[in-house]
Amino acid sequence: MQSNSFSLQAIGIVRSPLKNPADAPKQGGEGAPEAWIELKERFLPALLGMKTGQEILLITWLHQAKRDILQNHPRADKRRPLSGVFSTRSPHRPNPLGLHRVSVRAIEGNSLLVFPLEAIDGTPVVDIKSVSHTSDYGLP
Amino acid sequence: MQSNSFSLQAIGIVRSPLKNPADAPKQGGEGAPEAWIELKERFLPALLGMKTGQEILLITWLHQAKRDILQNHPRADKRRPLSGVFSTRSPHRPNPLGLHRVSVRAIEGNSLLVFPLEAIDGTPVVDIKSVSHTSDYGLP
Repeated sequence: MQSNSFSLQAIGIVRSPLKNPADAPKQGGEGAPEAWIELKERFLPALLGMKTGQEILLITWLHQAKRDILQNHPRADKRRPLSGVFSTRSPHRPNPLGLHRVSVRAIEGNSLLVFPLEAIDGTPVVDIKSVSHTSDYGLP
Repeated sequence: MQSNSFSLQAIGIVRSPLKNPADAPKQGGEGAPEAWIELKERFLPALLGMKTGQEILLITWLHQAKRDILQNHPRADKRRPLSGVFSTRSPHRPNPLGLHRVSVRAIEGNSLLVFPLEAIDGTPVVDIKSVSHTSDYGLP
């Protein structure tokens, strides 16, 4: 019998000048700043091979999002039709995972400087992946 | 004090002809088949607005992956240098989240037929997002 719930652990945390969601752009490409990803020390070996200039995908836990919202108006714009959260990028969703494509601008010890990142200061980071040009850009 | 662990719930499950990891391609674009995503009934409202032909991102819980591996050889190829899992797409990682870009080929009730998907039959699905051309393709 397959379990239906799983325990995610924070691997690190976002350190950003963005302090609250009202100040944050909706997506990274819309004027988001640089931010540091501070990894927990014990996960440092998992960075082996990471390079400045590399593009990566961060998965965060959007700790201020609401988990009981299944439909809303995209970008909180009431002129847009009501949509299911699974057909949008709403932060509010049953599992509030954030997905962020960023460039690595610096690596210092257990911290990565990344750009652009719309997640606010204190957001837990749960995964980091390299960008895969065959998988992430879709079929030709 | 920010919590360090979070509870993910399955929103649905993969129904696929791929029954074990040894049969599965490493990435969707490498010959993976169609698969059905069977959503739990209570999440059906979250599909409002989803369309056949749309590209979406699935986040899965790779339930057969190992969580205590921080470094390995990419694609299990010993000729490739040892790499940290955060600089690769290894399924083995502290939080074994799978990220899959797929096209929606059909929508029937609470199920989506998607292509291509390398996740095996029975893999829990934890999130579905629309592809964002400004966020997911990086800066121009």
